[in-house]
Amino acid sequence: MRKGAKPVDIEVVIARVKDLECEVQMNIGTERTVIAVLGANTGELDTGVFEVLPNVEQVVRMQKPYKLASRDFKKDNSVVKVGNIEIGGNQLVTMAGPCAVEDRETTLACARLAKKCGAQFLRGGAFKPRTSPFAFQGLGEEGLKILAEARDETGLLIVTEVTSEQDVQLIAGYADILQIGARNMQNYRLLDAVGKAHKPVLLKRGLTATIDEWLMAADYILRCNGDQPNVILCHRGIRTFDNSTRFTFDVGVIPVLRQLTHLPIITDPSHTAGKFQYVPSYAKMAVAGDTDGLIIEIHPNPKKALCDGAHSLTFSDFARLCSELRVLALAAGRSM
Amino acid sequence: MRKGAKPVDIEVVIARVKDLECEVQMNIGTERTVIAVLGANTGELDTGVFEVLPNVEQVVRMQKPYKLASRDFKKDNSVVKVGNIEIGGNQLVTMAGPCAVEDRETTLACARLAKKCGAQFLRGGAFKPRTSPFAFQGLGEEGLKILAEARDETGLLIVTEVTSEQDVQLIAGYADILQIGARNMQNYRLLDAVGKAHKPVLLKRGLTATIDEWLMAADYILRCNGDQPNVILCHRGIRTFDNSTRFTFDVGVIPVLRQLTHLPIITDPSHTAGKFQYVPSYAKMAVAGDTDGLIIEIHPNPKKALCDGAHSLTFSDFARLCSELRVLALAAGRSM
Amino acid sequence: MRKGAKPVDIEVVIARVKDLECEVQMNIGTERTVIAVLGANTGELDTGVFEVLPNVEQVVRMQKPYKLASRDFKKDNSVVKVGNIEIGGNQLVTMAGPCAVEDRETTLACARLAKKCGAQFLRGGAFKPRTSPFAFQGLGEEGLKILAEARDETGLLIVTEVTSEQDVQLIAGYADILQIGARNMQNYRLLDAVGKAHKPVLLKRGLTATIDEWLMAADYILRCNGDQPNVILCHRGIRTFDNSTRFTFDVGVIPVLRQLTHLPIITDPSHTAGKFQYVPSYAKMAVAGDTDGLIIEIHPNPKKALCDGAHSLTFSDFARLCSELRVLALAAGRSM
Amino acid sequence: MRKGAKPVDIEVVIARVKDLECEVQMNIGTERTVIAVLGANTGELDTGVFEVLPNVEQVVRMQKPYKLASRDFKKDNSVVKVGNIEIGGNQLVTMAGPCAVEDRETTLACARLAKKCGAQFLRGGAFKPRTSPFAFQGLGEEGLKILAEARDETGLLIVTEVTSEQDVQLIAGYADILQIGARNMQNYRLLDAVGKAHKPVLLKRGLTATIDEWLMAADYILRCNGDQPNVILCHRGIRTFDNSTRFTFDVGVIPVLRQLTHLPIITDPSHTAGKFQYVPSYAKMAVAGDTDGLIIEIHPNPKKALCDGAHSLTFSDFARLCSELRVLALAAGRSM
Repeated sequence: MRKGAKPVDIEVVIARVKDLECEVQMNIGTERTVIAVLGANTGELDTGVFEVLPNVEQVVRMQKPYKLASRDFKKDNSVVKVGNIEIGGNQLVTMAGPCAVEDRETTLACARLAKKCGAQFLRGGAFKPRTSPFAFQGLGEEGLKILAEARDETGLLIVTEVTSEQDVQLIAGYADILQIGARNMQNYRLLDAVGKAHKPVLLKRGLTATIDEWLMAADYILRCNGDQPNVILCHRGIRTFDNSTRFTFDVGVIPVLRQLTHLPIITDPSHTAGKFQYVPSYAKMAVAGDTDGLIIEIHPNPKKALCDGAHSLTFSDFARLCSELRVLALAAGRSM
Repeated sequence: MRKGAKPVDIEVVIARVKDLECEVQMNIGTERTVIAVLGANTGELDTGVFEVLPNVEQVVRMQKPYKLASRDFKKDNSVVKVGNIEIGGNQLVTMAGPCAVEDRETTLACARLAKKCGAQFLRGGAFKPRTSPFAFQGLGEEGLKILAEARDETGLLIVTEVTSEQDVQLIAGYADILQIGARNMQNYRLLDAVGKAHKPVLLKRGLTATIDEWLMAADYILRCNGDQPNVILCHRGIRTFDNSTRFTFDVGVIPVLRQLTHLPIITDPSHTAGKFQYVPSYAKMAVAGDTDGLIIEIHPNPKKALCDGAHSLTFSDFARLCSELRVLALAAGRSM
Repeated sequence: MRKGAKPVDIEVVIARVKDLECEVQMNIGTERTVIAVLGANTGELDTGVFEVLPNVEQVVRMQKPYKLASRDFKKDNSVVKVGNIEIGGNQLVTMAGPCAVEDRETTLACARLAKKCGAQFLRGGAFKPRTSPFAFQGLGEEGLKILAEARDETGLLIVTEVTSEQDVQLIAGYADILQIGARNMQNYRLLDAVGKAHKPVLLKRGLTATIDEWLMAADYILRCNGDQPNVILCHRGIRTFDNSTRFTFDVGVIPVLRQLTHLPIITDPSHTAGKFQYVPSYAKMAVAGDTDGLIIEIHPNPKKALCDGAHSLTFSDFARLCSELRVLALAAGRSM
Repeated sequence: MRKGAKPVDIEVVIARVKDLECEVQMNIGTERTVIAVLGANTGELDTGVFEVLPNVEQVVRMQKPYKLASRDFKKDNSVVKVGNIEIGGNQLVTMAGPCAVEDRETTLACARLAKKCGAQFLRGGAFKPRTSPFAFQGLGEEGLKILAEARDETGLLIVTEVTSEQDVQLIAGYADILQIGARNMQNYRLLDAVGKAHKPVLLKRGLTATIDEWLMAADYILRCNGDQPNVILCHRGIRTFDNSTRFTFDVGVIPVLRQLTHLPIITDPSHTAGKFQYVPSYAKMAVAGDTDGLIIEIHPNPKKALCDGAHSLTFSDFARLCSELRVLALAAGRSM
């Protein structure tokens, strides 16, 4: 309560708390009164419910606003199983491939290299969310078929993005992991739809999502999951004042997430860097910092790529990086 | 080009430019060479196309990446007509109403007050995008019917949010303006869908959208509009390091937008402030700063509102604000 | 406390609170225990003192960390008197002049125009903090003498920047208001030194200072001031992801500051805009938003200015703006 | 130039360029004209010089605004020698110690542990810049004497912060490296003063400094250095919207700096994390990411520390971290 709040102001707050079926506990200090609101579901209350009352100075949430993603809800790390691969176990996973599925030949070449370098997943967008309506929008189902062919040949599992509720069924028929891109992290209707598809979901962090918002977005999917959490978090850079890289590399969230959530964490060094030169360094930081895996863009000829060539690794750079990462992972007490 | 770039590096860039059917012009300085890429559609090229080439230091876009929203494309201010109301003319418009349509009685009370205070539009969400899956999600079609009833009674036009492609048809049957919320500003599939509904669209700025991204999002809708642009931009605060308000009030974009785009601009002071105490002050700034209108949350009893009560104005505060704004608008050379 | 904290963890916190001569009050909820720390000086405690203890989840400050600048400390608005001018009263003040004092002629021309347009203060830098060591650094004492001559001729009071403790005495001999620039807002030794000079201080907000940090910086000066607060706050834009203007216009802090502090508030639209085209619009927003005054850069020939010409108003633009602002100030219930 | 700029506008720009003794080269495109300004010192020109001219749309800097810090100026990595220690060579350096020098006993205990764990430097503040004027401000010269005693006993070199020009002489008499804190990164008078002291300087990045600003700040010092660059950059977190840690860990700048500058880079994981739990993880990321060293806060009893206890490592945590880092450094191809 504000300094100088009157007894009647305090009574109004108490009455509102009772209305909402919570309990109060009073702290009457020398300077001001603090009212604690107690109850099992206070995490779900909007703080505005109290901010609007007279002479309330500040409302501070002690309970986390997310639930199913919280380590309070599930103490041990979750391991998401995709086919026979575990994400979140001791072994780091590698997802590699082109930004967009451009054609059969390039995609198969990427898949073969990814397989050879030890990757478990092939990534590639068939439905691309593009900032400009005039840019290449992806091959659609044709792209999904090419991904499936690459899986058949190499055994790699497929991770690909979903940008619309209307495509969920179609894409779930081809993909092993459904990816929600950063721009759709708070597209709640889409989160609901992928949750109901009962497939593992790679949930990218929004460009300026707080950790609370990210884990609440995970909750949208998790509440469709039953006992087996099927969400993999993926950090991919945040937008800040610093424009020396495409996005600011937010690798520092890893130990924070480890305290707050049981979900596995994947790092995308490619989109955050925006330049292929920085990708190896970013990948190494993430491995030393305890990520559960990497998702990296590769291309046989980045100079000819239809999108995001600037941050794609060439095949030789990617092969070299993979061996360097393996050494680091061992030094960090994990395998890769 | 980087200092020390070799002739062969420069030839590679020139070749790539020719590939893309553009022209080059060379600037050979004492320190470094700058290559200008010329062509009618360079605004649509990804800068990565050149960043990836050897010894390219920096790629700078001179052409705007958006097109239809640009003042280069259309020189005069666009006026969006909704019923017999013009948005973007000399008279400012007012949109007022509750955050969510909670029930018939509250909504009708808001509509009557809005009408009495001179507003032209009733706002209110029937489909609410909520950060937490456990929060109140809106009344759905039942809410739309209540809005329609309020229109029948008061003559106010209806602006309401669309959160899914699947609802566009339904909502377009009731609403006069379709609102795209900040979290969906880059939900491109939804932008396509509302563009095809041939209704005016209120396009809110994403929490951390740059102006380029916002105007490219407008382009998604505008390319379905034909000759008559039907997009109204709405700024509603951005996310920054400063958390003294819910979002940082981005009213400073108004004169910037006036230079770059012909589209009308509406200000949402309620969501940015987060506290009703700041709303009148923010509304006044926007009017003095040449906005085309305001969208304001009101509630007969904010203390009981199911969502966003903390920034809703009471009826008496809203009525007082409206008369103060009218005086300011006149002082600023416009009417309201 | 974290969920699952043990009684011994709670005892450790209680013991630390007692050590620091504060009191505790316990809130034992169904999910977790919250410990309130009570005492007159908790605003001065570092939250880290408790964050470091085992199973403490979060430490939230209820008391403001600043003191003398707070409205809790002084309820009524402070009016800072400079000569016979009051800053923070009903009449808005205008400060105008060139970015840097370049020469006698330009400075006198600016002063005469400022006077004619109704300004009370002449601004101009004699000691310039420049981002690059190779840029023009100001005329030093020579510049101060020119400012003094302009005061003698026009009666305008002088506001000029101090960038070093070693210059405080010298500058205080010429200036009526000492300005602390944004980059020095947390140069605590300089704050101390200007505080001891017993002159009014215009304290600019740091590029990314929170309001708490800004008001704590004010406290450094205020504790040297005795009974008459001598600090004027000046907002001048913040750094965010949005680079469509030089800095993001932070005019939205005005109503927030009005709640938190008794100090007067001045707006600098020139440095935030970075382009003269936006300055009039920004000045109007601030006047409608209840600022106590404006500090604006003018130049007889911005195209030839040695620094910051891009956001200086020409004489005719400034004269026109002043008359428009006077109308707006009246409409907003104040004079100018 | 803006689309539709007239020949006379272009002539005005060309005349201004000639005035400033630079050359122009014209690019006349289908949509707009681009004028390249060529000359050896264009990096020192203010872009505003041209922005202010009629129908200039945008001014883009191709030349870096910093000079001496640039890799264009000096191609090979600089190694800063302090006593017999090299910073920027193959071996990573470790700087450890308490946040503030609180007393003789604690400081000596820290020094002994740091030595035992392989550190080369003892850190500790004698003059502390504190956000609040009411917080502990450091022991002053008494603190410097304690640091010197610790050096005498252990052989560790001393790094300590300078917060005022007036203290430079005094502190340079005791310290081996002068530290400029984040809040003083743009205190140009202080940069000048430490430059003239001819001691190595650890230059921390400002909370929201861009890389250009940081390297221009380095230029202030470097131009006093003669042939042997004596500046060590230290990144320590930036301020963003994300407040899940004290500052956002900006480790991603390392590969960016490697491209732009020849100066060595040190990482401060303690201040960025704000919580000791995250420090080991952040230190590991930096080592894997090719930092030249770490500066880490340690304290024998963080629970009793007078400042920043929350992010200080205990002695056992620090010892364990040092051995883990050594393994990682080897895996990354360096020694520690």
